[in-house]
Amino acid sequence: MKVENAAGRLIETDISGKTFKPFSGAHKHTYSSKVISLSDALKKCGLKDGMCLSFHHQLRNGDHVVNRTLETVRDLDVKNIMMAQTAIFNAHEPVIDFIKDGVVNRIEGSLNGVVGDYISRNPLSYPVVLRSHGGRWAAVKTGEIHIDIAVIAASAADERGNCTGVLGKSAFGPISYSEIDAMCADHVIIVTDNVVDYPCKYQEIQERSVDYVAKVDCIGDPNKIMSGTTKITDDPMKLKIAHDCVDLMDAAGLIKDGMIFQSGAGGISLAAMKYLGERLEEKDIVASTATGGLTQLIVDIYKAGRVKNLYYSQVFDGYSVKFVQDTLEMPADIGHYADPTSKGRTIDGLDTVVLGATEVDTDFNVNVNTHSDGRLLHGIGGHQDTAAGSSLCIITCPVYRKTNPIVLEKVTTITTPGDVVDAIVTNEGIAINPKREDLIEKVKGKIDIVPIEDLKDMAYDATGGPQELEFEDQLVGCTKWFDGTVLDIIKKVKGLN
Amino acid sequence: MKVENAAGRLIETDISGKTFKPFSGAHKHTYSSKVISLSDALKKCGLKDGMCLSFHHQLRNGDHVVNRTLETVRDLDVKNIMMAQTAIFNAHEPVIDFIKDGVVNRIEGSLNGVVGDYISRNPLSYPVVLRSHGGRWAAVKTGEIHIDIAVIAASAADERGNCTGVLGKSAFGPISYSEIDAMCADHVIIVTDNVVDYPCKYQEIQERSVDYVAKVDCIGDPNKIMSGTTKITDDPMKLKIAHDCVDLMDAAGLIKDGMIFQSGAGGISLAAMKYLGERLEEKDIVASTATGGLTQLIVDIYKAGRVKNLYYSQVFDGYSVKFVQDTLEMPADIGHYADPTSKGRTIDGLDTVVLGATEVDTDFNVNVNTHSDGRLLHGIGGHQDTAAGSSLCIITCPVYRKTNPIVLEKVTTITTPGDVVDAIVTNEGIAINPKREDLIEKVKGKIDIVPIEDLKDMAYDATGGPQELEFEDQLVGCTKWFDGTVLDIIKKVKGLN
Repeated sequence: MKVENAAGRLIETDISGKTFKPFSGAHKHTYSSKVISLSDALKKCGLKDGMCLSFHHQLRNGDHVVNRTLETVRDLDVKNIMMAQTAIFNAHEPVIDFIKDGVVNRIEGSLNGVVGDYISRNPLSYPVVLRSHGGRWAAVKTGEIHIDIAVIAASAADERGNCTGVLGKSAFGPISYSEIDAMCADHVIIVTDNVVDYPCKYQEIQERSVDYVAKVDCIGDPNKIMSGTTKITDDPMKLKIAHDCVDLMDAAGLIKDGMIFQSGAGGISLAAMKYLGERLEEKDIVASTATGGLTQLIVDIYKAGRVKNLYYSQVFDGYSVKFVQDTLEMPADIGHYADPTSKGRTIDGLDTVVLGATEVDTDFNVNVNTHSDGRLLHGIGGHQDTAAGSSLCIITCPVYRKTNPIVLEKVTTITTPGDVVDAIVTNEGIAINPKREDLIEKVKGKIDIVPIEDLKDMAYDATGGPQELEFEDQLVGCTKWFDGTVLDIIKKVKGLN
Repeated sequence: MKVENAAGRLIETDISGKTFKPFSGAHKHTYSSKVISLSDALKKCGLKDGMCLSFHHQLRNGDHVVNRTLETVRDLDVKNIMMAQTAIFNAHEPVIDFIKDGVVNRIEGSLNGVVGDYISRNPLSYPVVLRSHGGRWAAVKTGEIHIDIAVIAASAADERGNCTGVLGKSAFGPISYSEIDAMCADHVIIVTDNVVDYPCKYQEIQERSVDYVAKVDCIGDPNKIMSGTTKITDDPMKLKIAHDCVDLMDAAGLIKDGMIFQSGAGGISLAAMKYLGERLEEKDIVASTATGGLTQLIVDIYKAGRVKNLYYSQVFDGYSVKFVQDTLEMPADIGHYADPTSKGRTIDGLDTVVLGATEVDTDFNVNVNTHSDGRLLHGIGGHQDTAAGSSLCIITCPVYRKTNPIVLEKVTTITTPGDVVDAIVTNEGIAINPKREDLIEKVKGKIDIVPIEDLKDMAYDATGGPQELEFEDQLVGCTKWFDGTVLDIIKKVKGLN
């Protein structure tokens, strides 16, 4: 068919079996400021009952954005919101009231502390779904989680929506976690207390994804954004565990030029990184790359020339924020870091990672989510991702804590399955997964190994064994493996009210 | 239903109306080098008859990758390939043979020079589809163009596929154009002559998108990568046109602190940028941002402190490549720059842009694709995008060239419709689109304006008017507006064989 288009030209609409649409007119494309109030932004994004709102956790225990947003939702008289946060902390205690008020009725995202404790006692009608960093990225990317409105805290944003977490008084490091939300959500609201001149200098999220920039007085308390997880343990028992981790890496032949390792936060892991840095010096070795989170410790190892490259998905202290502001280096969003649906991830080449546990069992399954009393108090973080991505995944823990055995016959909840866990380093010795015959062969004669059953027996002898939990049918939540399948379910413990 | 999953846990598969898949097992995720030959890469990506292969044009007239890839396709005895390149140059003359041999039978992408000339005389059975930079990005993003295999030249890549165009002897600037191909294509092959240590330092494309890294001896001739389009004109007539452009900007009140302008290549546009830089100095004005392509000229204006920020999607000379290597600044991929399906683009805030034309008409329609003899010799580039994104889109041209009127009653082909064109600056005066009454009002008394019809009359008087072309029914191609609609069709000219 021939038609005259808006430019006055006669064009064919069917050519070689394809349909062509005629030009219907051109106009100037301008822009106008996207800065409005949070309430107006939510309204203009069509906020309504039952929607899914997402958040990131990079302001940690200093975050004001989650509570502020849910208050606004409540003021707008909207109910039954699903939260898809990357994590929440004790600062988010008001979420309990939002649940009680019916503002929030579903959560797919990590829980830490008081909200987890509340939900353990008062399960939601739909179980909390816990995913790893990489698993959550994939779930948003594939549509398993559909986000209606992404609410993204930024420490600096320009009026068009280009924004960052690297600049400003509330700087928390690159936004990395929410970058997939910005790409996939129907609507995107940037929440900032710092509207800067266009164009914002760093831009983890760009105007192309942003509907509105909600200006608030304060996105968080800077003193609490940079949390205490960057303090190295001074407990001699834990220091010995950390030191043994480095001996194990060394015995396995992994401490060599070009090594790639994960550097995270947490007392023992940090101490292990400190000892690893010292070992690199002693042996005059230069590592290739550290992945994970930045702390002063790892930045100093970098500055000392002992690791050539830093990939980082979060930043844990002010020293490291300053480093990022000055040098940028190589931020890796969570997709680059850990998306299991991608064709390659930074963590796939990890030589080693040191991770914690609330419990481990004789099948080498690890629990980081629930405590021995069955309460859901922690998220998964990058635990699964880095365990599966590393050649040597080391789990550290004491064999027991107070009256609770930590090495058990069966963990309360499986966070990371034993098939990707290689070694357990405890205060009573090192156990290696018997499936890793190659590793056992490598370290033979260099370090002492004990059977995991012996560690369990020690724990049971000292504590009298684990407390027997009785469960109700009601589900508190479930842990998913990063491919989206259900690894374990968390049931309500009888008597926990 | 309750089932035991691979971790030995009894889990529910139906919870609150949702289906949950049980965990089926975990395994270590490792990586192996993606470096193989180009031929093997194409085979492993399942190359077969009728597929669409995409390429970028950033190696310009020095590119070896397009020809090399099509040779490999021919050697593998595969036919009927659709090319979806961002542009091709005279260096791609062998494409003519690939068309004759049946290796290539469709092209959706910009053509420059000899291949355009050949197709103008020997149309393909399916018309060439020409899109702007932003229009192509959108077409790939929305699936209007489905790319089976993206073949992406990189001047440095690591064995996992992280890659850049910024480093190495064949450095050409950020890969920007192909970033959407990497995201959307079924398969992605990085072609490089420079495999660097992991992790590659700049990473416009990351391992997450990459299937294979094809190592070749040479991706291009460095002397021809940086092309002559960065030479400022020394033709006094053109210099006067450039100077008049800056006077027009000034009269329109656009030369002010915080202005945002597009800086491209091409003789007159470059001269206009030079004069604009001088005007900023004279008036002691600091612009906010320059978008577009980097040249020594614009980098020096930046270094002189006359523009605060440089957004760039391509890099035109070695001086600017060095600048990018040293300072990075703010690369903007083509999606950030010009994706019309996004929520905001860097070009939407342009105060002004200076663009060229092969023809303009009295409706202010502009042609940059075909010559007066009807041959398709140029792509659209960012012409449409920046015209629509700018407050003042200035088109520069002489009123006639040799015996051809350039200001006409009707352009041979519409590239950019008159509705987004604001002014035509010629050697015989400045015409302003009568629809822009606000602009006419602003410049009144400051600069002389002539009706566009007068410019056309001058052109017709000097040349005797345009040559009358007779067309056959056969289509050579069509120009699309960046929203995917057909703006104009290009028919074969009778007698052009």
